[in-house]
Amino acid sequence: MPSTTKATAKSYSNIAFVKYWGNRDDLLRIPANGSISMNLSETATVTTVEFTPDLAEDSLEIDGRPATEPARQRAGQFLDVIREMTGRPESARVVSHNNFPMGTGIASSASAFSALTLAACTAASIELSEKQLSALARRGSGSACRSIPGGFVEWFPGLTDASSYAIQIAPPDYWPLRDIVVIVSSRHKNVGSAEGHILAWTSPFYTTRLNHLPERLHRMRAALLLRDLRALGEECELEALELHTIAMTSATPVIYWDPATLEVMQAVQRWREEEGLGGYFTLDAGANVHILCAAADAERLAYRLRPLPGVHDLIINSPAPGTHLLEEHLF
Amino acid sequence: MPSTTKATAKSYSNIAFVKYWGNRDDLLRIPANGSISMNLSETATVTTVEFTPDLAEDSLEIDGRPATEPARQRAGQFLDVIREMTGRPESARVVSHNNFPMGTGIASSASAFSALTLAACTAASIELSEKQLSALARRGSGSACRSIPGGFVEWFPGLTDASSYAIQIAPPDYWPLRDIVVIVSSRHKNVGSAEGHILAWTSPFYTTRLNHLPERLHRMRAALLLRDLRALGEECELEALELHTIAMTSATPVIYWDPATLEVMQAVQRWREEEGLGGYFTLDAGANVHILCAAADAERLAYRLRPLPGVHDLIINSPAPGTHLLEEHLF
Repeated sequence: MPSTTKATAKSYSNIAFVKYWGNRDDLLRIPANGSISMNLSETATVTTVEFTPDLAEDSLEIDGRPATEPARQRAGQFLDVIREMTGRPESARVVSHNNFPMGTGIASSASAFSALTLAACTAASIELSEKQLSALARRGSGSACRSIPGGFVEWFPGLTDASSYAIQIAPPDYWPLRDIVVIVSSRHKNVGSAEGHILAWTSPFYTTRLNHLPERLHRMRAALLLRDLRALGEECELEALELHTIAMTSATPVIYWDPATLEVMQAVQRWREEEGLGGYFTLDAGANVHILCAAADAERLAYRLRPLPGVHDLIINSPAPGTHLLEEHLF
Repeated sequence: MPSTTKATAKSYSNIAFVKYWGNRDDLLRIPANGSISMNLSETATVTTVEFTPDLAEDSLEIDGRPATEPARQRAGQFLDVIREMTGRPESARVVSHNNFPMGTGIASSASAFSALTLAACTAASIELSEKQLSALARRGSGSACRSIPGGFVEWFPGLTDASSYAIQIAPPDYWPLRDIVVIVSSRHKNVGSAEGHILAWTSPFYTTRLNHLPERLHRMRAALLLRDLRALGEECELEALELHTIAMTSATPVIYWDPATLEVMQAVQRWREEEGLGGYFTLDAGANVHILCAAADAERLAYRLRPLPGVHDLIINSPAPGTHLLEEHLF
């Protein structure tokens, strides 16, 4: 038995400036395109993993309650990959806590699978480089690979399991950018991202998107390295509209937006044009809106966003570090 | 002096099932693609034209008030085409009435220029075939060519002035379809369609759209001829979403939707899925929503639509005849 069988890791969700949408390989989650993101300080997951011969099968608890069976099985399949690496058969007890409420449309799979990756590898005494951890986290949830490094991150799509991972392109303190997550009420059940990644290819516009994305990635990288909010923000809005264009023109057209989504997007554009208030929207495959802005403008934007119809809650995020170990365990 | 110098024509607006978006020739308004539409019974324009040596320049009155100078000049330039055909120099007095309020986002240029075409040609004693009238109306406003024939209409894009005109593909009584125009409040100034037709080409997805439109036109024609509401409605929704994604991904991205637009679109889809209430949305380049349905469902849909937030007014249209002369003049 190795000395460490229990470990706890903390990780953060991330917001993509250039989106992950569509896989080259669905099983390995090798994406069709590269993407760029920022880790989010206020949307974190802490996960403790213990491999133990006492359990007949993996157990998973999220926020104090047993997870659903599909969630437990998905975690178990991911842990199988790690068990294969060690050659040891023990099941794992996994306990996880999110510091943001579930069911708000905030994707927890990025922070969940990156935290699980580091905690499980450490508990299993597997030592991996950051790149290897990132590639491994990707197997659990594509965007989780971007939560392994800290700050501002690029995911190189790669063509193989080992070459599809994310690296840091700038540390968290490189740029005091803020991302305000605007949580809106959603009546509509979203199409899950697994299905979304498959549907992407059915849009008649998808290959055109793939063909011009390398240039967008270049512009986004440059805007980030030059800390040019306007260039970054405008590119983020184009990219978000394009993601939703692909969804709305897929074989089963998906409109992820709520009326409140549009309300927020248009308010932010209006404030920018009429008052010079520098917020820029981006959206994942859901109804919530992310507003990117300078640290100095975050409170003013939040003050304006709160009273808008359909706005339920705001979360103001700074760039966050990568996945790391904690001393304290959850059980 | 020819015997007839004064004539009055009535014409109807139309809703496109396959949209006109982008020109091959901006000056002649030769479109990049064919389109299919239905004339709308409750959105009509009546126009009287008199050519007279008493006027130094063309005059234009709309709904009892002198038109704006840009509108007067646009009508004057169109009348120049007719004056060239006759070789006579007289200016025209033009008086026009719409039976729907201006500024609601209902496009009046289709009914306005088709009525003007027939009234002016008759007043100038020019006898043209329906195809020639349609091609001529197109010079004033592209979609006006589709309001010349009655009922359900297809505009063949053509490559020359003479070959770009619309024909009837089914008469008004072929199918008792209804089009409910849902007028929503709009805070946002729309991008004019002249600018829109130019912007279309800047979307990276535009040529892909042009390439697959012949198949969509085929499916739309077939659904129409087979009176298959579901096939027609689903194709209309795909087409409307595609038009708006082209606008949203143009060099200057344009979001024509209001929050209420999305509210209506999603309500109609929800009622269809959950209650089998058969309404299908389409949208022109604006915030209003058009709901296509069977005559039997129109009142029930209207009853559900009225209380939705942001809905200002409804207009329930039947298929309307083409542009025709009236005996009575407006002055």
